[in-house]
Amino acid sequence: MAGQSINVCLIGQKFMGRAHSNAYLKAGKFFDLPAELVMDTIVARNRAELDVFAKRWGWKNASIDWREAIKNPLINLVDVTTPNNKHREIVIAALEAGKHVACEKPLAATLEDARIMRDAAKKAKKSKTFVWYSYRRVPAVALAHRLVKEGRIGKIYHVRAYYLQDWAGPNVPLVWRFSKEQAGSGSHGDLGAHIIDMARFITGEEITEVIGAAQDTFIKERTLVTEESKGGISGGATAGSGKKGKVSVDDHTTFLARMSGGAIATFEATRFATGYHNKNGLEIHGEKGALRFNFEDMPYLDFFDRSVDSKLAGWTRIPASRAPEHPYASAWWPTAHHQGYEHTFINMAADICRVLGGEQPEVPIPDFEDAYKTQEVLEAATISATERRGVKISELRRG
Amino acid sequence: MAGQSINVCLIGQKFMGRAHSNAYLKAGKFFDLPAELVMDTIVARNRAELDVFAKRWGWKNASIDWREAIKNPLINLVDVTTPNNKHREIVIAALEAGKHVACEKPLAATLEDARIMRDAAKKAKKSKTFVWYSYRRVPAVALAHRLVKEGRIGKIYHVRAYYLQDWAGPNVPLVWRFSKEQAGSGSHGDLGAHIIDMARFITGEEITEVIGAAQDTFIKERTLVTEESKGGISGGATAGSGKKGKVSVDDHTTFLARMSGGAIATFEATRFATGYHNKNGLEIHGEKGALRFNFEDMPYLDFFDRSVDSKLAGWTRIPASRAPEHPYASAWWPTAHHQGYEHTFINMAADICRVLGGEQPEVPIPDFEDAYKTQEVLEAATISATERRGVKISELRRG
Amino acid sequence: MAGQSINVCLIGQKFMGRAHSNAYLKAGKFFDLPAELVMDTIVARNRAELDVFAKRWGWKNASIDWREAIKNPLINLVDVTTPNNKHREIVIAALEAGKHVACEKPLAATLEDARIMRDAAKKAKKSKTFVWYSYRRVPAVALAHRLVKEGRIGKIYHVRAYYLQDWAGPNVPLVWRFSKEQAGSGSHGDLGAHIIDMARFITGEEITEVIGAAQDTFIKERTLVTEESKGGISGGATAGSGKKGKVSVDDHTTFLARMSGGAIATFEATRFATGYHNKNGLEIHGEKGALRFNFEDMPYLDFFDRSVDSKLAGWTRIPASRAPEHPYASAWWPTAHHQGYEHTFINMAADICRVLGGEQPEVPIPDFEDAYKTQEVLEAATISATERRGVKISELRRG
Amino acid sequence: MAGQSINVCLIGQKFMGRAHSNAYLKAGKFFDLPAELVMDTIVARNRAELDVFAKRWGWKNASIDWREAIKNPLINLVDVTTPNNKHREIVIAALEAGKHVACEKPLAATLEDARIMRDAAKKAKKSKTFVWYSYRRVPAVALAHRLVKEGRIGKIYHVRAYYLQDWAGPNVPLVWRFSKEQAGSGSHGDLGAHIIDMARFITGEEITEVIGAAQDTFIKERTLVTEESKGGISGGATAGSGKKGKVSVDDHTTFLARMSGGAIATFEATRFATGYHNKNGLEIHGEKGALRFNFEDMPYLDFFDRSVDSKLAGWTRIPASRAPEHPYASAWWPTAHHQGYEHTFINMAADICRVLGGEQPEVPIPDFEDAYKTQEVLEAATISATERRGVKISELRRG
Repeated sequence: MAGQSINVCLIGQKFMGRAHSNAYLKAGKFFDLPAELVMDTIVARNRAELDVFAKRWGWKNASIDWREAIKNPLINLVDVTTPNNKHREIVIAALEAGKHVACEKPLAATLEDARIMRDAAKKAKKSKTFVWYSYRRVPAVALAHRLVKEGRIGKIYHVRAYYLQDWAGPNVPLVWRFSKEQAGSGSHGDLGAHIIDMARFITGEEITEVIGAAQDTFIKERTLVTEESKGGISGGATAGSGKKGKVSVDDHTTFLARMSGGAIATFEATRFATGYHNKNGLEIHGEKGALRFNFEDMPYLDFFDRSVDSKLAGWTRIPASRAPEHPYASAWWPTAHHQGYEHTFINMAADICRVLGGEQPEVPIPDFEDAYKTQEVLEAATISATERRGVKISELRRG
Repeated sequence: MAGQSINVCLIGQKFMGRAHSNAYLKAGKFFDLPAELVMDTIVARNRAELDVFAKRWGWKNASIDWREAIKNPLINLVDVTTPNNKHREIVIAALEAGKHVACEKPLAATLEDARIMRDAAKKAKKSKTFVWYSYRRVPAVALAHRLVKEGRIGKIYHVRAYYLQDWAGPNVPLVWRFSKEQAGSGSHGDLGAHIIDMARFITGEEITEVIGAAQDTFIKERTLVTEESKGGISGGATAGSGKKGKVSVDDHTTFLARMSGGAIATFEATRFATGYHNKNGLEIHGEKGALRFNFEDMPYLDFFDRSVDSKLAGWTRIPASRAPEHPYASAWWPTAHHQGYEHTFINMAADICRVLGGEQPEVPIPDFEDAYKTQEVLEAATISATERRGVKISELRRG
Repeated sequence: MAGQSINVCLIGQKFMGRAHSNAYLKAGKFFDLPAELVMDTIVARNRAELDVFAKRWGWKNASIDWREAIKNPLINLVDVTTPNNKHREIVIAALEAGKHVACEKPLAATLEDARIMRDAAKKAKKSKTFVWYSYRRVPAVALAHRLVKEGRIGKIYHVRAYYLQDWAGPNVPLVWRFSKEQAGSGSHGDLGAHIIDMARFITGEEITEVIGAAQDTFIKERTLVTEESKGGISGGATAGSGKKGKVSVDDHTTFLARMSGGAIATFEATRFATGYHNKNGLEIHGEKGALRFNFEDMPYLDFFDRSVDSKLAGWTRIPASRAPEHPYASAWWPTAHHQGYEHTFINMAADICRVLGGEQPEVPIPDFEDAYKTQEVLEAATISATERRGVKISELRRG
Repeated sequence: MAGQSINVCLIGQKFMGRAHSNAYLKAGKFFDLPAELVMDTIVARNRAELDVFAKRWGWKNASIDWREAIKNPLINLVDVTTPNNKHREIVIAALEAGKHVACEKPLAATLEDARIMRDAAKKAKKSKTFVWYSYRRVPAVALAHRLVKEGRIGKIYHVRAYYLQDWAGPNVPLVWRFSKEQAGSGSHGDLGAHIIDMARFITGEEITEVIGAAQDTFIKERTLVTEESKGGISGGATAGSGKKGKVSVDDHTTFLARMSGGAIATFEATRFATGYHNKNGLEIHGEKGALRFNFEDMPYLDFFDRSVDSKLAGWTRIPASRAPEHPYASAWWPTAHHQGYEHTFINMAADICRVLGGEQPEVPIPDFEDAYKTQEVLEAATISATERRGVKISELRRG
């Protein structure tokens, strides 16, 4: 670690670029970290926007040439928040330049890309890799992971995972999120990837089979937008040109799966769950207990403990940042003074810094190998939906 | 017990007459009781309505003369559901006739009446008395009582009791519930009495002082109704005559009180809590734990147990009819197949039957002496609101 | 209708026999009905138990011979609550005897039986048939049906239906509910049937395809019980003989389906959802709005109305028995004085009586033809789980 | 505004010093503000701690001499987060130096101090004053304020305000928060002040009378701590010396009050509400509607609208940062990506900046005159509890 500082090169300045900048800015102010996170270089394509962004967030340097930027020998960590179809090229270059690499989720736009990235990471023995499945660092989710690990749930029978949004009504125009070329996939990679990772993380099990899947594009054509949209989930674009274009991604992907421990799991990712603006959650039921989390009630983890006297048994709503032993709690505000969405990124920046500084993260961060397994499930679900059949994950490994 | 049957004479056939008839009809079908509850005689003033009611509910006899009816030597239990200002006369006569007496709440329209009734009950050594504070028999409330008794809450610091309704908007006409003459009081006796009893029942403590109180009539005049209204909380009357009359009761009574164990308590009874149609509840906080109940979520008791490891501590929502050891659970439907409002009356009829048959009730039923203490608190709060000063309960006993 | 009375012959005296007896006892006391429901004859196999039951509930006659009982010319309605594998024989005989028939759900143990029953009902032109999918008569569910019908949801995108119980842990012995011979199926027919009906009823759409399904027996062997168990969901049996026997039914059935209007639907029925004792519910998301119901919060229907100004939009928790125009509300207690589980049966008995008396039910009651469609879905899901492939409902109709 | 920048001098570096530093750091990164907030000087007593703090947070200068620091002509805004008994001296000096002043709540330790500060602010015509009642800037609270202002609630009947914490069990030692000298008051000034302000802010009414009040010190003696405690609500101290000292502040203050529009209000502030770690909330019921907020569910405002068709009426849970027209929503993350506790401070820093830059704040910020009215209510409640009588606010103004 050069002078106990980690010099970061961040690529991308949209929604995620902002969330990561904020994370690097704040991690060191709240956590006692083994190294200083230095906001060294920000990279983006649009020079004008870039300069404003760099100044606002305090990046020391701003570049429109990522190839140049990542070659800089002072850079330790390259953080990639570009569209998914750009991940591979940048990540491979960064690994070849000997950098540590953090990459936004999903790992790649295709399983092929993901495999190449995973293999490159394996070879780059001095580089550490990280994938921003940031919901792992919601305190309640991290606590759920720990409770399962401690054996409090026992053999798991059911997993119910969902990521429900509702912004994609028929009047929303054809923003980049509806384009396969730009976004890689629709709800599946955007939302489904999060809950696949969350289910794997909390249960400690792998998904071995997609039993059945459906993928639909409810609104097949949308009004074209004339210029690129900016910011927001739905791109903020509201006025269209009148002409229509084809939507090339899924509006929802829903599937039934088998976990390695025998549990049955449902996964539902959609942009058409009217009334749920950002409901990302999971329930698991096991022999000894059950857990329930949903991001609409971010501060809480619900726990049902079968070992409790039946007179007193019930779901306990645990405020997951209440006690000093709760994940990330001691870094933040007093008891029950809530964290918000952005803190998942800050907690992750802190954990990345700990790992690079030789310390343990609060809970495991997925590396490329780990995130590749999530990518396999994405692929299996898509094949299952397309070919209308069950798909074992092991099939994907044969060829 | 004559022939192992309890012959009931019920006085009143309105809302409560119906609830009690249903209770007598059903108790023996669900509970294994030491005696049979026989629906012997129903008494009311309106002959035509009475006959229809008696037939519908299966009462063997119907009478418009309560004095005659309660003298019948076959009657064992007289149950009084008349307006509060009639309680005293009927109850005294029934006690003098050697009957057991059940009386709707509050015990009486005035403290004076209540005192006379209590004293009469004391003298009538062969008679047992019961007051229909039926919310004690909500499974969750009965469970709360038990948990406190088991020492799970410890010294109590706070009590927060409320009974919130919202039916009395400015357009509701001047039905009987707004008349002091007919109803005795407004929200205070109707709703406040329930939560005073509930607080005393659950905590096992007495209220020793009303520290401050307010009583308001928000809508001072209402449209007159030409004929007597029937049924429903608000009497069902919707069309008025155009002329207005004075409201003579309180729309809300809210007070601050001290419990005998040192806790501070708030009591709020109102018909103007827009949005809460029948929210009757209580929270207590003690050294070892806390309890929370509200009738809008009738099946559940929330319990916070301070002895739980702080990593796992939180409010547990206990489904209070889930386990065989839960109050009344084994008489009813399987686990988590909910009871409703009417079951509190059926549970109470069963408990009255048990007591008269020499068995223990599930949880204590208030007798006149017990209910008299609730009446004292009602009185103290009214004095406090009127005279704008604190009132100790002991004051009421001096004179 | 003979003398404006409906003479009922009820077959079965277990859990459902009790629920139906209670329904016949109470319907006429709360509803103004076009005919009197007369509790004429109760039929069961165990003479001793039967006599106690008949006396307790006030059945005029008790018989151990159902064939004889249903031939009685005075009987108008035969109500069948036997194990599913007995439905066909009794129902056919009752139809042939010219009776109206009510049958517990699911319609039959096999699709073959169900088809025969449906066809027999079609031929018996003077008989009306009813299937006890009683959750349709939860006020919130009936309200949901009406809101969809009024067009408040619009085109439906997602359906999420679940019936989650947790009583079947590894220590529960081999009671009748685990035997295919006695119970027909496990969670699928017991719980899944309810939510298939509920989804069809609320959406007004049919299920056209099972895309993928899984059915598991998590606990494959259980301790044998020496005598038949009685009552309760889990049969009440707790002590076993030590020896083990095979479980022959499914512990859960979970499937992915397509609705006729294009929506994607998940159905999950299980006895292994630790922490959920009787959570039966459904969510639907449409173009104009969304609805959410679950039996753990029985009194409420949640509604999201997309037409509301976005500043004020959110899920509204509608107390579904609050207003006079709410289903069944006017028959019962005042505003927000909750109904419970049993009221769904009473409401249904009232509606059956209305239909037989020539009036309209509050909401449609499924007849055999309607219930047959639910049975088809049960069958398709089982085939899908067994053969590991998608199954169109139309396939079942070809052969 | 000197060069369109606001140079801040912050006094205090404990819990609030950290919250304010974070606010100044972030406001400009998320909001488009009329001036730059410059973190110029941090002042505290402990040199060693101060330097670490200043470096961590990026303060340009650090001083242990507040008198010197605030004289600096480059400073525009002095922000005071010292213990309450120090507010007056520093604030007066700052006003005399011609600075704008922001002061933590409550305005002062005594009504006398508050009056002097208010009067000084009135005289200092070029200075603007602000008091950090930061909960006004919870999006849901700001929205509640607006809905009342728009007339959606109508005449208000009831206000129910509470701030419930539970950290002060008998084992907590005698930290500074239990000392009147250091803290000014206990729960009353710490928690009660927030809800008095919140009730005034949301209703737009003043409190005119304290009808009755109680103030208790449940635990009268606590174990002494040998050195000053640091951070956290309870000071983080866990080990005591064995010796005990007297608690000189209130553990709870609960009172009944009258609002200027006629509503009755309850206020409850306590550190002994076992199970509630930071439950700060308010309910109001009016003729046209009702509102409900509590900080345990920070993102939501519940609204009951009486004008809705009664078939559909119910409490609507509004996600208060969902729509672009929601307060502060457009500055932050996409729809329903929650803000946390700290954002109330950042939102306030942004609003202070707007006011100093000549723009409108999102919702009004209390100045000293406004905050003085909250102080009067604090005083009246204390008098009421001590003298056991009702206290009109107007009494306090007579002299």
